[in-house]
Amino acid sequence: MSFERGFPVSEFETRVQKAQGMMRDAKMDALLFMTEREFTYFSGFQSNFWQSPTRPWFLIIPAQGKPIAVIPSIGENALLLSWIDDVRIWASPNPQDEGISLLADTLKGLANNRVGVPMGAETHMRMPANDVEMLRSSLGAVQMVDATDIVRSLRMVKSEREIAKHKHICGLVSDAYETIGARVRAGMSEREILAAHRLDVLARGADTVPYIVATAGVDGTDDAIRFPNDRPLNVGDVLFIDTGAEIDGYYCDFDRNFAIGRASDATKRAYDLAYRATDTGIAAVRPGVRACDVWQAMADVLASGGAQGGGVGRMGHGVGLHNTEWPSLMATDRTVLQDGMILAIEPGYDFAPGKMMLHEENVIVRADGAELISRRAPRDIPIL
Amino acid sequence: MSFERGFPVSEFETRVQKAQGMMRDAKMDALLFMTEREFTYFSGFQSNFWQSPTRPWFLIIPAQGKPIAVIPSIGENALLLSWIDDVRIWASPNPQDEGISLLADTLKGLANNRVGVPMGAETHMRMPANDVEMLRSSLGAVQMVDATDIVRSLRMVKSEREIAKHKHICGLVSDAYETIGARVRAGMSEREILAAHRLDVLARGADTVPYIVATAGVDGTDDAIRFPNDRPLNVGDVLFIDTGAEIDGYYCDFDRNFAIGRASDATKRAYDLAYRATDTGIAAVRPGVRACDVWQAMADVLASGGAQGGGVGRMGHGVGLHNTEWPSLMATDRTVLQDGMILAIEPGYDFAPGKMMLHEENVIVRADGAELISRRAPRDIPIL
Repeated sequence: MSFERGFPVSEFETRVQKAQGMMRDAKMDALLFMTEREFTYFSGFQSNFWQSPTRPWFLIIPAQGKPIAVIPSIGENALLLSWIDDVRIWASPNPQDEGISLLADTLKGLANNRVGVPMGAETHMRMPANDVEMLRSSLGAVQMVDATDIVRSLRMVKSEREIAKHKHICGLVSDAYETIGARVRAGMSEREILAAHRLDVLARGADTVPYIVATAGVDGTDDAIRFPNDRPLNVGDVLFIDTGAEIDGYYCDFDRNFAIGRASDATKRAYDLAYRATDTGIAAVRPGVRACDVWQAMADVLASGGAQGGGVGRMGHGVGLHNTEWPSLMATDRTVLQDGMILAIEPGYDFAPGKMMLHEENVIVRADGAELISRRAPRDIPIL
Repeated sequence: MSFERGFPVSEFETRVQKAQGMMRDAKMDALLFMTEREFTYFSGFQSNFWQSPTRPWFLIIPAQGKPIAVIPSIGENALLLSWIDDVRIWASPNPQDEGISLLADTLKGLANNRVGVPMGAETHMRMPANDVEMLRSSLGAVQMVDATDIVRSLRMVKSEREIAKHKHICGLVSDAYETIGARVRAGMSEREILAAHRLDVLARGADTVPYIVATAGVDGTDDAIRFPNDRPLNVGDVLFIDTGAEIDGYYCDFDRNFAIGRASDATKRAYDLAYRATDTGIAAVRPGVRACDVWQAMADVLASGGAQGGGVGRMGHGVGLHNTEWPSLMATDRTVLQDGMILAIEPGYDFAPGKMMLHEENVIVRADGAELISRRAPRDIPIL
């Protein structure tokens, strides 16, 4: 399947112009970003260098015009390949002044009053806390204020070019799940299964598989997030696999359940209920509906089967530059769904003590309802 | 090669007791950690769940006794598999109070005065900035103070069990580099080479390859950090590959250079100088020597060849739970080397405009000098 990498410059211009419109409304003179995903979202710059915690990177969106990068010297050549042309560098590492005075001078040249920085849910400041304080004091009268709403509202709604990347990664992970019987058998451990699945997803063309889980247990797994262990799987085990793979920066995040050799009636019933809750969740998705409404529709189906949610705390979430993003499909999230959002529909519950059933599909919110982009799980639990 | 995962509980007890000794000296009542590496370092808990930015996780080290975890409900079962038994959970997601009141109450029960949190170089607070403020105000008279020195000094010096993991990952990446001629040829693009190398390192047993770079250019690459492109490599190109692979949480980080078809005299000379600087750097490593002394030894060799450092800003660094950690081998870092540190020895320079030569090996600081754990690069640039 052909796959087009990157974006035309117009895509970044559109993002920046939308941000600048919201900045004006929020009376911010500039926006400051410092995490990998936000830096990449506005600049197009991609690098594994974010793995190294030594050096911070900063991207500024002024009230008008293109973003300005304030970065360590090592990144200059790479960043100049992007659409950004104002790249200001400092000789790094320099723990005594790790870009702070250059950053503060740049911001003070652009802002008299307020600089927006994401400070709310699902964000963090990727720089030492001491440097946050140094920046705050260097900025003098210029205040840092919360800009979470701006990036949240922009990133939640995907362009068709972004959607194409989501579709691509969902398609190849669907292929991997549908052929997993050729690679998984009784006697393999969770760790061996996870390693084989990761290699398969990469061999099919994913760039990375940062989130991957394979857990199993007799008649059901007890956990959706732990690392794999080395116990060989036996007939009667249920295997849970969850995959957050990525291509060109965009994620899928959906899971599958498999029975080894045979499935008990309790497992089949639990699978059936989660399957129906997923169907209901998918059917509830459309623009104008709230995240909590989709949650309620799924919770009602689970309750009708005598089940309640487990420790996961929600039944789905946004997917984008992370495997999980805003919004959350939960009782208290009143985010209104919009055309172009990507959601993981993820109902789950404990069907017996220590036995969890969790299903998950990825959809696009479209004008006429959900468009499924993961290929729907089998109607009955597959037996490997 | 057999590989033992995890650590006996005594390893974690030792880490915690050392931290508690330093806490007493620094007059801290508790330590608070929230990044993946520090949570794992003291708890042994491993999960890919850190990929999701939705929920913070907190680990507290009290003045005495075992760490206390304050975590989202979804993590309870997984965390109880670790040596930690005091696991306090909140129903998460809950953006209005994402664990902050539970965390503040727990800390106030342990501390009257000062809670240490890493706030210095190479650290960050993995929680929303608004929540940092809410925590600070909830703590009342209890102050958050910088504990970077405690984790820095602990993590920089590795136990023999940690060293065994570093050796293992260095060995298998050395194998991958030494056999790369079977997978790389003219006509392949950087992107294809990177993908093939990643698959090979994983197939050899690495858990993940979070940091990986493959860049090429005529007679030399111009960049050590950018993403790969799709230009087919030609005879006369020089290919640079850098690999930060990981097993059981511990990294290697070393690079290699290859010529495609033939190498120019300028490239051979540049390779020779970097090779000799690396030898000199390795020979300079011993306990008691400072990071800046090792840098100076390498800088002198490069200067004797007419070269100066480029934009990288240093000539090596620590390696551990990240591909790069404290200290930095640079003029201003006076960290005294100790037995048990793992270092990347990494001299580099621009040998012509737009042409960079960067070598890198990984060593253990031992009582009698450096023990090489990457297998030394070939003396002359390999021609593929």
